[in-house]
Amino acid sequence: MKVKRSERLIDMTHYLMEHPRELVSLTFFADRFQSAKSSISEDLVIVKETFELRGVGTLQTVPGAAGGVKYIPGIKRKHAEELIGSLRTNVSHSDRLLPGGYLFMTDILGDIHLMNHVGKLFAAAFADQEIDMIMTVATKGIGIAHAAARYLGVPVVVARRDSKVTEGSTVSINYVSGSSKRIQTMVLSKRSIAQGARVLIVDDFMRAGGTAAGMINLLEEFSAKAVGVGIFIESEYSEERLVDNWISLLNLTGVDEKGKTIQVKTGNYFDKVQSFLDDKK
Amino acid sequence: MKVKRSERLIDMTHYLMEHPRELVSLTFFADRFQSAKSSISEDLVIVKETFELRGVGTLQTVPGAAGGVKYIPGIKRKHAEELIGSLRTNVSHSDRLLPGGYLFMTDILGDIHLMNHVGKLFAAAFADQEIDMIMTVATKGIGIAHAAARYLGVPVVVARRDSKVTEGSTVSINYVSGSSKRIQTMVLSKRSIAQGARVLIVDDFMRAGGTAAGMINLLEEFSAKAVGVGIFIESEYSEERLVDNWISLLNLTGVDEKGKTIQVKTGNYFDKVQSFLDDKK
Repeated sequence: MKVKRSERLIDMTHYLMEHPRELVSLTFFADRFQSAKSSISEDLVIVKETFELRGVGTLQTVPGAAGGVKYIPGIKRKHAEELIGSLRTNVSHSDRLLPGGYLFMTDILGDIHLMNHVGKLFAAAFADQEIDMIMTVATKGIGIAHAAARYLGVPVVVARRDSKVTEGSTVSINYVSGSSKRIQTMVLSKRSIAQGARVLIVDDFMRAGGTAAGMINLLEEFSAKAVGVGIFIESEYSEERLVDNWISLLNLTGVDEKGKTIQVKTGNYFDKVQSFLDDKK
Repeated sequence: MKVKRSERLIDMTHYLMEHPRELVSLTFFADRFQSAKSSISEDLVIVKETFELRGVGTLQTVPGAAGGVKYIPGIKRKHAEELIGSLRTNVSHSDRLLPGGYLFMTDILGDIHLMNHVGKLFAAAFADQEIDMIMTVATKGIGIAHAAARYLGVPVVVARRDSKVTEGSTVSINYVSGSSKRIQTMVLSKRSIAQGARVLIVDDFMRAGGTAAGMINLLEEFSAKAVGVGIFIESEYSEERLVDNWISLLNLTGVDEKGKTIQVKTGNYFDKVQSFLDDKK
């Protein structure tokens, strides 16, 4: 039975949201809704316009027999500013200060709504990149990695500090943590990354960049390539970083344990991200 | 400017999917779309019918001045059977066999599409429960926890094996792992769970149930309550389990290292889950 336009639009939206950056053929939708491809094309124009207007992404059309549409999550600059602004306020709260000047962020990294925002921000930042998988290191980056993966439609691999029997054979590297100068180990299951894979690295925190540099080195062991580094919060660091290029949402500029204040500014996100949804209009 | 129905339906679908189990007032949508509440009500009927027909969930209407709608993710029995069936085929693959009879599952736990399926299955299983948060233990359950959290709209807390300075003050318990009889430690940040919270426990694997029982005990330290236990794959176990009630997607009945076979059957999911979307029709 032919499906009405209203129902098609609802189900299409649902389907595309669950399959970001995946090529969906017009035939797939035509069969699903028992409708003519011309109707499906019209529907997709409406979905595209609404997604762009509402600032949730766009539809990319791939022409030809093997063509179709891809939902590419994106964000408007104003919305990105709002999201990062509210993360900044949240992280700056003096309650977060722990002895030693550390910040308590576990609640943020477990907050699914905030993680959705972080995932969207990273997906928009790396929208123009071809990405095969997302890599992070256990434990705190995992929520961020899954959030980004959800909007980029790719799998997550997690490097560990220790080797576990359930990982099978592994590749391990030693690296020097940049700020503490300690030697650390990072282990990744041999079968987790295909040769030549294009990998987006994400993590919750970066100071000197030793962990991110370690992940990049580990990728080299797999003949895989780091196509970007996304950091939730970087910390001011006076020496040269161990990585060249990264995108951060926040920048921790100072912690005053006595005065109980945390200074956080916006990271380099708006310097680095090339395009936002509203730029196209 | 008044927004057309087609655009309203697309944006409503998007909004509801990003805010599962959250009460959204009609006024919110009426303001967002500059439309009359009567039109919004009509839209919501169409969305509800489509969601139910397509088997992605339902809309619950809360009447009265403080009322509105909630999107409750759900699943049809047939679809649940398909998803669990394909997970079963995937897990049974002899490639997964590691020395010692362990199973390699890291790729599954990092596959965002499979994790979405797992999240949906758990969200549907616990759809009738009031849930404040999801708890798991590092590291392998974290992807499952975030997937379930996405469809249940609640935060994730992660218990750790060791205490880290960035967790602040912590509560720790010792427990006996049921199958290996080893004493293990589990640590949770003091500020991670509110008193009286209703918590869904999830994990990737369960044998005797020692880890799940440990999490339940740890929750008691917070005067919080475990409202359910969701397990990706349980393993056949001849003695009494250390937990009373759990829902599993898969059941590992045997591993033959020499013959290189893995026997997996469907878990107790269909015995335990009370209702599916198609039951209502």
